[in-house]
This record gives sequence, structure tokens and C-alpha cells, in this order.
Amino acid sequence: MSELNPATLAHLKKVSVATLCTQLFKRGFRNVFIQGTQRLTTPSGGNLVGPAFTMRSIPAREDLDQISAFDNPDHPQRKGIESVPPGHVLVLDCRGEKRVASGGQILTTRLKVRGAAGLVSDGPVRDSGDIKKMDFPVYCAGGSAPLNLIHHHAIDLNVPIGCGGVAVYPGDIIVGDEEGVVVIPAHLADEVATDAAAQEVQEVFLLERVAGGAKLAGTYPPNAETKAMFEAWKKEKGL
Amino acid sequence: MSELNPATLAHLKKVSVATLCTQLFKRGFRNVFIQGTQRLTTPSGGNLVGPAFTMRSIPAREDLDQISAFDNPDHPQRKGIESVPPGHVLVLDCRGEKRVASGGQILTTRLKVRGAAGLVSDGPVRDSGDIKKMDFPVYCAGGSAPLNLIHHHAIDLNVPIGCGGVAVYPGDIIVGDEEGVVVIPAHLADEVATDAAAQEVQEVFLLERVAGGAKLAGTYPPNAETKAMFEAWKKEKGL
Amino acid sequence: MSELNPATLAHLKKVSVATLCTQLFKRGFRNVFIQGTQRLTTPSGGNLVGPAFTMRSIPAREDLDQISAFDNPDHPQRKGIESVPPGHVLVLDCRGEKRVASGGQILTTRLKVRGAAGLVSDGPVRDSGDIKKMDFPVYCAGGSAPLNLIHHHAIDLNVPIGCGGVAVYPGDIIVGDEEGVVVIPAHLADEVATDAAAQEVQEVFLLERVAGGAKLAGTYPPNAETKAMFEAWKKEKGL
Amino acid sequence: MSELNPATLAHLKKVSVATLCTQLFKRGFRNVFIQGTQRLTTPSGGNLVGPAFTMRSIPAREDLDQISAFDNPDHPQRKGIESVPPGHVLVLDCRGEKRVASGGQILTTRLKVRGAAGLVSDGPVRDSGDIKKMDFPVYCAGGSAPLNLIHHHAIDLNVPIGCGGVAVYPGDIIVGDEEGVVVIPAHLADEVATDAAAQEVQEVFLLERVAGGAKLAGTYPPNAETKAMFEAWKKEKGL
Amino acid sequence: MSELNPATLAHLKKVSVATLCTQLFKRGFRNVFIQGTQRLTTPSGGNLVGPAFTMRSIPAREDLDQISAFDNPDHPQRKGIESVPPGHVLVLDCRGEKRVASGGQILTTRLKVRGAAGLVSDGPVRDSGDIKKMDFPVYCAGGSAPLNLIHHHAIDLNVPIGCGGVAVYPGDIIVGDEEGVVVIPAHLADEVATDAAAQEVQEVFLLERVAGGAKLAGTYPPNAETKAMFEAWKKEKGL
Amino acid sequence: MSELNPATLAHLKKVSVATLCTQLFKRGFRNVFIQGTQRLTTPSGGNLVGPAFTMRSIPAREDLDQISAFDNPDHPQRKGIESVPPGHVLVLDCRGEKRVASGGQILTTRLKVRGAAGLVSDGPVRDSGDIKKMDFPVYCAGGSAPLNLIHHHAIDLNVPIGCGGVAVYPGDIIVGDEEGVVVIPAHLADEVATDAAAQEVQEVFLLERVAGGAKLAGTYPPNAETKAMFEAWKKEKGL
Repeated sequence: MSELNPATLAHLKKVSVATLCTQLFKRGFRNVFIQGTQRLTTPSGGNLVGPAFTMRSIPAREDLDQISAFDNPDHPQRKGIESVPPGHVLVLDCRGEKRVASGGQILTTRLKVRGAAGLVSDGPVRDSGDIKKMDFPVYCAGGSAPLNLIHHHAIDLNVPIGCGGVAVYPGDIIVGDEEGVVVIPAHLADEVATDAAAQEVQEVFLLERVAGGAKLAGTYPPNAETKAMFEAWKKEKGL
Repeated sequence: MSELNPATLAHLKKVSVATLCTQLFKRGFRNVFIQGTQRLTTPSGGNLVGPAFTMRSIPAREDLDQISAFDNPDHPQRKGIESVPPGHVLVLDCRGEKRVASGGQILTTRLKVRGAAGLVSDGPVRDSGDIKKMDFPVYCAGGSAPLNLIHHHAIDLNVPIGCGGVAVYPGDIIVGDEEGVVVIPAHLADEVATDAAAQEVQEVFLLERVAGGAKLAGTYPPNAETKAMFEAWKKEKGL
Repeated sequence: MSELNPATLAHLKKVSVATLCTQLFKRGFRNVFIQGTQRLTTPSGGNLVGPAFTMRSIPAREDLDQISAFDNPDHPQRKGIESVPPGHVLVLDCRGEKRVASGGQILTTRLKVRGAAGLVSDGPVRDSGDIKKMDFPVYCAGGSAPLNLIHHHAIDLNVPIGCGGVAVYPGDIIVGDEEGVVVIPAHLADEVATDAAAQEVQEVFLLERVAGGAKLAGTYPPNAETKAMFEAWKKEKGL
Repeated sequence: MSELNPATLAHLKKVSVATLCTQLFKRGFRNVFIQGTQRLTTPSGGNLVGPAFTMRSIPAREDLDQISAFDNPDHPQRKGIESVPPGHVLVLDCRGEKRVASGGQILTTRLKVRGAAGLVSDGPVRDSGDIKKMDFPVYCAGGSAPLNLIHHHAIDLNVPIGCGGVAVYPGDIIVGDEEGVVVIPAHLADEVATDAAAQEVQEVFLLERVAGGAKLAGTYPPNAETKAMFEAWKKEKGL
Repeated sequence: MSELNPATLAHLKKVSVATLCTQLFKRGFRNVFIQGTQRLTTPSGGNLVGPAFTMRSIPAREDLDQISAFDNPDHPQRKGIESVPPGHVLVLDCRGEKRVASGGQILTTRLKVRGAAGLVSDGPVRDSGDIKKMDFPVYCAGGSAPLNLIHHHAIDLNVPIGCGGVAVYPGDIIVGDEEGVVVIPAHLADEVATDAAAQEVQEVFLLERVAGGAKLAGTYPPNAETKAMFEAWKKEKGL
Repeated sequence: MSELNPATLAHLKKVSVATLCTQLFKRGFRNVFIQGTQRLTTPSGGNLVGPAFTMRSIPAREDLDQISAFDNPDHPQRKGIESVPPGHVLVLDCRGEKRVASGGQILTTRLKVRGAAGLVSDGPVRDSGDIKKMDFPVYCAGGSAPLNLIHHHAIDLNVPIGCGGVAVYPGDIIVGDEEGVVVIPAHLADEVATDAAAQEVQEVFLLERVAGGAKLAGTYPPNAETKAMFEAWKKEKGL
């Protein structure tokens, strides 16, 4: 997990994407959640966390995007997969195209073998039945059997892209839980991770309170009294 | 379950939403099924049934819909949740907005603690992974991590609304099964429940006939002969 | 399974729809995967395979499409279900309409009893909870409770249709796996099945190679060296 | 104008499509206006009026829908245009496909020469700049240059179809004004035309009243007093 | 034009909606332009300007929304039109529904006679051909003949609504030019109008410069030198 | 018009985009027409023709895309406009985003002053009322007042992009008429132009024939007899 501060990584492995969205909203960011993408797999090891490595595609053109295109060992899709640094997340800009796959099982397997942290696409994948069984974080727009060449031409590696309507700059920190994927601007990762972790400790307490019958007013958000109770609760728990 | 006739409640707990749609279609209602919403949880206790308590939202405005908005204990979203009468269903008009959450785990927990019958929204919820595990009927447009303030401003409680393209008047009877949610105009609840229950007894018989090899013609819908067989079958079953 | 060559049937039962899409792409077909449809059930017995028997619908008209329409034993929807030859797949053109059901449990049960191979629709089904438990291949746009008469008028049997954006001619070979449904022009079924089976043998080998650490270049697609290794591997496996 | 009663034709040439929609709504028809289609031309001679002659298309298939398809003199698109009876309206079911044309200038010219009343499509036309200048009623989804073969395969003539979400049966009466196109079930054409003409006489009077300062209450809809004034006004005008 | 400061009104009559969007963006507002709506008429007298008077609708229900509904003189749609204060803009929340009209010529005429400043809807209007000829600002989603009762039930007057995805509070200042409609929060109208007017003076100068061959760098946005030239230009023009 | 063969340029100035789409379809290209874009202006001088110079944008990010971004003289949007070579067409990839403008009057004026051939965007423009009056080819998705920074961040110049769903490589030949815009792969421009010009001569003849009463069969497409008549007609016309 090359570039991440270990404490940041530890926090981001555990906090929810919803909490991260709240922290980013507090800092003025309203558009950080990748739309139209769900987690396909059920990977072990906590959240997907890693810096973004991106791949960009444009619409296919019939003369260029034939099956023979892959005979070129420098084809950007293949080269991209071979270039993702360990611990990084491959993020594909498929322009939200849902009719064809972004990739399939062999490429996903290669990604995993190379030590990538995961795969995020705003298009579907093919071989989705087999990929679903892999212990590897894959976020995509479900499964679709037609191959990528029908609508995609991979063109650029590690440039700023859009994915699911969100800007993704190479090196931005990608975090995914079972709800979806958030893109954290790289320079904010540490502070957002710290604050998100603190927010979640409080929310555990507040949820306990609400489950125990507390009214929302005064509890969520907490007033001074609830905050004091929270401090006591933390002390008791040794937090 | 405040206002419902016990026999009606008993019927509505068991009949399918599909059957209720058919009964309403026979009475001239074509638009009673909330579109774009699925059940997120797998609650015990049969169908979701209860009178509607509604909340209306409009698009957010950046100066009004900051995180501090919730410091106001009278914020309509919070007040709404504290106002749902026991046995009622909170129905949210989120204008079909799929990009942000309508609410999350703490609010859903409070709803449950207060004795609400369930939650129906035409938007997604956040903390969807945790909510999925609750024994509480939640119908929504899946999960989405961004918070409601990004696109929603809660504005009115218990006024007529649209939800998933359907008119919902306060007090309409909401019924949800694993397929989705139907809105029954309050004054029709009793007769629709009775007829739906009768229809389902017949359909159990007809399904048995079809599973046993009967042709559709004469069976579905039943002709005089099949109807006679149905009467005999009911007698035999003591129905 | 009336018309299919047994070897073709055996191949099509096992190969993936993704592989079939690739084979058809190599032959110039880019639009063969039914869009917007998922498998609802988890049937035993391998892929759905069978010749298409089609039913066409047009928008409903309020005076014609009342509940009493089904009293006519020659209503095309009912007649269609009674006409699907054993081993054939009923393919419904619902014009991609997602707001109402294409059919429900009784009709699906009759289809199964008659020996149909499966059901494919570009609309949803009702009674989806019960149908989900049937050991019968059903592909559709999820579940929706409102009945078909609200938006559909069944009009024609076994004419060329569109389903999910794809042309389906009666007798075309329908294949469905957990990812979705492909439509194979009838005259290509044998050669596509043979080539798909061969492709999948190679992909098992290539996946093994990639899982074992091979780079994509030279492996996928295979160069001369990898092809030689593949021949050796096949010999070893007795393939 | 083969089949239409001359009084009906005279009325339908003048009344607005909006008025016809109201008359059909009063008879229980809610879905009679072709959605997604505008008038491209500004023809002389009042409304488009005529019985529907239909053409159905399905999605194209790459092996069948090559440019050489038109070498076949029986190609349904060409045959269809040669078959439209004088005074009839050619209505094309293009499945709402907006990406390619339904036809172009040469075909539209042939239609006009043959004495067709007009053309209605739920897809665009090509050569839209030239067609715009024709004195011939053309309703479509704007202009689009790609040829029909890319997405359409014409398959059937004069069968019931859907167009812009509305059922069109051969012989239904098509009426188009500058706002759009309504489909009148054939058996209702006479009564709807009569009542629409009467409604419009009243609306001329009511509009005069409102333009002159009358409040809506009592005027629109008219109460007994306004109705009496209307009778007097008609007498005065000799209507 | 009841509530508006005369200088503000004078400015808003002339500046473009684009400039107003820029001024609001500078203040943190990103969502103030009503989407999916165009100007139907070509009114004299500069921009549409006036405080918003709103009407809210929900989906129709077949038993309530029959033609007889309008016999009630207190029907909210009719009452709403009779309630718009002179100089105000009637803004309709039609939930973006494009399939039916929001209103027609008689209601629009009454609005004009009553002295309303204009009409804004996120749905279409009927009688669009006649309305197009009125000297009255009407913004809507084009023309559509079916009547509102098919999908709309007017329910509330002068409450906060959404229109074209934008929050509209009663009294917000609505400004429309040929490009569309912006909603200015009431408390910002004066300062936004002043700054917009100043921005446009500068843009006239900058456009002159660019039309005369100036490069963008240093001109747009202006550097110190260009600003000095602008001051000189203003002095020369007596501005 | 830098790179274009003069004969090619002359042909492309006159032939229709529809004809060019047909020529490209004959060569296997099905996706060459930019979708969702119309001509805003009515420029003199025949078709828009020129090599593509591209600009790519990604979704905006709130911290980067503030109004101050344009203070940077190297901002890609501004730099892009200053870089378009004379005779080239600026093609903007706005990811089909319709909610905000791609640019406005000052930038379009600068483009024109610099000698660009025209502007093509798959998003709208602002100041659309003023731009409409310019004698300069502008193709876009209509008008929209909000500024580009709300959703766009210009990022790259003259890289391959998608525009309206079509691949555009720098140097591809862009041709626009009143119907829309086609993208001709650079290496095909000469042959496509020649064949399109020839096709149009024939279509003038065929249209004359059809307007004069010829049946489609034998005329369109022409049989041997019609082809002979065409040769005679050409001789007569001295073509």
C-alpha cells in the first residue's frame, strides 16, 4: 500500500464510505461517490483502500477495434493491467456504458496476481459469475457478456478521468465498502481518515443511545449533555 | 396498527402485492405500485402493512442545507421521524433522486424503536449494509453513501406526496411484500383486502390444477366446471 | 430439444454466454446480448438452451385490455403459452417496459409443465418471489406487481421480434447463463457452439497460466510459445 | 380520404389534437398521444387526417441489414411505401430509436406522389433539411443522418403496432396538428369528431370571456349562467 | 412588480440569465437554473422578472382526477391561477413529467389578464401553437396535447417546491431570458442584480476587445492593463 | 483549410451528412454521427468542414474548479481556444453533460477571430441567444446558462476523445450540415468525399424520377434501365 500513511490506511480499512462522504461534504465536496457501481465480490480484509491508477477509454471504431487489436502487446488495456502498481486500485473510465463489459476473469485474475488492491469500473464486467467468487474487490455495473471492443477503445493510462460522474486523479485515494466507492483527493486523505474514524466512534455511541430509546433531539446531533455522556462512555471503554 | 380493521390487517399481512394490484385494477386504478423501489431487508412477521405518514422534500439549496441544519431540533427530517405514529409507515418523497441517501441507520433505528411499521422511500438509504441486517421493513432504491443534504431539503410532514410515481395521501394503506409496495386508497382497504384474500384462495387451487397439468383455457380464468371443482376443493379443505 | 444437433446442444449447455458473444463478434455480430434482463431463478441442468418461440405485444388500450380479455380462450398471451413447443424458449417482446409484469407464476408453471426450456422477457415478472424458487430458467427485468394488461396487449405469436434491443427470429438459438442471454442466428448455432467450446478449453489453460503468474503479453492472446504449451497441456489432459 | 365520413373529416381537419385528447379522456382513454414526436414540416391544408397504414421494424442484424438489402424489390420498407393507400397515413414503429433515421427524402417524396396523407414515425428522418421544405405532413423525432439499416429491419406491413408508446391499429384515425399526433380508435372517430367540434365552439366563446376579464370560476368550466350566455352568443353568430 | 427594488428590477430586465448564474456561482450556488425548460413565446419588454408564486402537483389518482374535478371552483389549479398576485410568476412543479400538459391557452390567458408576470413549468403546455403567439413569457417543456388530469393532481399553493430540479421558495426572484430561467434566493436579489449589471458592462467591453483580436490571456479574465483600458472605456462612454 | 485536398474540401462543403453516413456504412462504420447535438447557428458558406482539434474535460471538483481557475493563463480551456489551428474544428468532449454550458460568446468569438472552422460540443453553450446570430458554425446541445466550472474541468488538448458517443481522433475530418455532424476517419476523407459527391449526383436524378412518378422498385436503388437513363441524364447535363 505504497503511499498511504499506515494510520490512515488502518482507519480507511474500517470506516464506512458513508462517513467519508460526510467528512468530505463538511469540506465542501458534494460529488465524490461513484454513481452506478456496486460491489460484485465479497472480499475479505476490510474495505478496498488504495491510490488510484486510471485507464481511459473512448468509443470504439470498427476498423481499429477488431479482435486482432489484442495481438499488439502494447494494447493499452493489456499494458494498463500490467502497469498497476501493487496496492493501487485500477479505476476504469468506461463513460458509464452499460451495454458491454469493461473486462473479464483473466484480466481480473492478472490484476490480483500482480498485487493490485482492486478494480473499479463504471461499466459492467463479463465472466461475472466467476469473478463473483474471487476474493478480490471488484466494483462495477454488474455483469454483461459482450466484449469491450464493441464499444470501448482503451487509450490512456494514469491520466485524470471521470468514473461514475466523479473526477479521479491518479493517486487519489479510493475507498470501497459494501455500499460503494468514494474518491478522496490525495491531499485530504489523512485528515479525512482521522476525522472519519472519530465520527464513527461517536456514531457507535449515538446508535446505542437511539437503540436504547433516546430521542433524536439532543442525541443526533448530540447536545452538550450527550457529548458529556459520550466522553464518559469513551473513558469507560478506554477509547 | 391504529386504524385498520383487524380482519383487513390480517388479510393484508398475507396476500401478495400483485394480487392487490389486480384488485385495484378491477376498480379502475392503474398506477398504485411504487416504481423503482425494492425491499432492502428481510423482515419477519409477514407483509409490511400500515397507514402512510408522509415526508416531502424539495431540492437542496447550498446556503440552507449545510451540516449545521441538523442542529435545529425542529428540522423536518428529524421531527418527521419523531412524529410517525406507531404502526404507521413513513413514506418519503425523494423525487426519485438516486444519487444521495434519504436517510441512514440511526434514523431507521429510531423509527423502529418508536414502533413504526416500516420505511418506504423512492431514494436510496446509506449504511445500507447495516440496515440490511435489521428486522424492519425498509423499501428503497438500494444503497448510496452521500448524505441527503446534498440534494434534499425536508420540507413538509404528512401532506399528500408522490412516491415512485404514485400518489400517497396520509392514511392510505401501504402494503409491501418481497416484490414491492402498493398504495391502497384508505377508503378501499377493507373491500380490497377481502377480495384479495378470496382471489388468493382461488389462485392456490388454480396453481395446483396447472401444476397438475391443466390447460390454461378453462382453468385460468376458470370456467363453470373449474369453478365447481374449486367449490368442492374449498369444502374439502374446510375453507 | 427438438431441432438442435446433440453436440451443439451439449456445447451450448456448458459454454458461457460471454464466449458465445466473442464468437459472434468474430463473425461480425455486435448486438446479440439481450440488454436489461437478468436471471431470476437458479435452475439446475446447465445453461438455458433452446430455439426461440416468440410473443409480441403492443401498448395496451383501455377499452380492449380489461380483465375480461382473458375470458377469451384464444387470447394471444394464453394461446402463446399453450403453443410453445417442448424444448423451446418463450421470448417476450415487452418493448423494454419496466413498470408492469410480463406474466406471473401460473403462466410460468404452465410453461414448465408443457416442457418449455425457459422464459425470456425484457420486462419484469410478477409473483417474482415464488418464481424465484422454481427450478426453471426465467430471465427478466426483475419483479413488478402490476398486471400486464395495464401496458401490454399480446398480439402475435412466433413472428420476428425485438427483445432487449436484439432481433429474435423464431428458431434462433437462445442460450442463457448466470450473466444473461445471447441470441444465436439459427444457421450459425453449430459452428459457434464448436468454436466456443474450443475457445473455452483454451481459456481454462490461459487462466491457469495467468493465475500462476504469467504476464498477459504472450499469454492472452497466446503467442506461438504459449500455443505450443497449450497443445502439450491438452495432450496431457487427454483433450 | 377513403373511409372517413366527410363531416368527420371536415371536423378533424380543424379541431386541435388537445381537444381530441380531452374527448378521448372523457371516454376513458389516457394514452392516445404519440410521445416524442414533433411536426417537422409546415404543411398547408389544415390538420393531418387519415386512417393508419402501419409498418413495423425490429432491431437490425448485421448479416441481413446490409446496403444490398434494398436490391430486393420486396424489401418491406420499400413495399410498404408502395402500399400505402391514398389518403392514408404511414405510421412507423421505430421502437423510439433516436440514433438513426426511419427514412429520407426520396421515400417521403414517393409517399407524397402516391397520395398518402402523411408520415408519422417515432424515430427521426434523414435529409431533414430538405423534407422540412416539403408541403407534406411529416411527424418524427427530428433529424438524424445515419441510415435506418444500422438499427432497423422493416418486417411487417399493416399490423397493429406501438408508436411513441401508443397502440396503433390499422385503420385507426390519425390526426396531427402543430402540437403533435393523436390516435383515435376507428369506431370512435365520428362521435369524437362531432363532440370535439362542439367543444371548440364553446372554447372560442370561453376564451373570449376570459380574455375579456371573466374569472375562471363559473366560466371554465361554465356554470348555468355562462352556458346561457354561450347559447345567446351562438345564436348571434348564427352557429 | 410588487416587492422588487426598482433598480433591481431594471437590472434584472436586462442582464442575461447566464450572468446571473455566474454571480450566484460566485456566492456558492451551483443549482439555480431550471433544467428541461425552454421559452415558448417571444414576449416584448425584456426579461421575465418577478417573485415566484408556486403551485405543487402530485401524481393523479383515477378516482379523484376525472374531468368533473374542475366543477369544483376551489380546485387548486383554478384557484392558483386566480391567486397569483400581479407582477408575480406562476411556477409549477410538474415533477418533470413530459407526457401531459401542465395547462393550456385559457388558463394562460387568465394569468395574463390578471397581470401575472409569466408562467414557468417543468412540464409542457397544451394549445402550444396558440400560446406561442401570445405576448406573455411562458417557459415550459414544449407542447403536449394530453390534459393534466392524466398525470397531475394540483394540491398546494405557494409552498416551497422543486421545479426542473431547482428549489423554488415563494418570493424567490425568477428571471427568464431566451436561454432559460434562473431562481434567485429573495435575499440576494439586490446584490446579484447590481453585480450582474456591472459584470455585463465589462463583458461588452471584453467582447469588443476579443472581437477586435485580443488574446484571451490578459483579456478574459482581464489583467491590470485590460482593467485600466476598461476604466478608460467606461469614462469615454460616460458609464 | 490546412490539410485537406482541395477537391475533397469542395465535395465535403456540398454533400449532405446523410450521404457521408451512407458512404461510411458501406465501409463498415456504423457509429460516426455525433448524437445529441444540433446546429445552433445558420452560417453562410456551405457545410462546416475541417480537421478536428479536440479538448477533453472530466467532472469538476469543488476545490479546483472555482471562478479563480481562469486567472491561470494556461487554463486548458483558454489555452485550447488559443491553440486551434486556422481551418480546424474545435471538438469538445463534455461527456454528454446537458446541465451546464461548454462555453459562451466570448470564447466562440475568439475562436472565430482566430480562423477556426467551427465549434462542436456534446454539451450546450451559454449566451446561446447571441451566439445564434453569429455567422459561424456552432453545433451543440442547445443553450444552458450555468457555467462550465460547475460540472467540467478541462484537462487535455488534442487527444482522442468521445463526442456524442463517437470516437474523434485529432485530425479526423469533421463535416456538419443542418442535420448534424459526422466524423470521417482522416485516411478515408478523400475516397468518401469522392463517392459521396457521385452518390448525390445520382440521388438528384433519382429524386427527379420519383417526384415525376417513378415507382421505388427499379428506381431506388436503380436497376440497369434506370442506370442507363442516369447516364443519359448526366450526358445531357454535361456532368
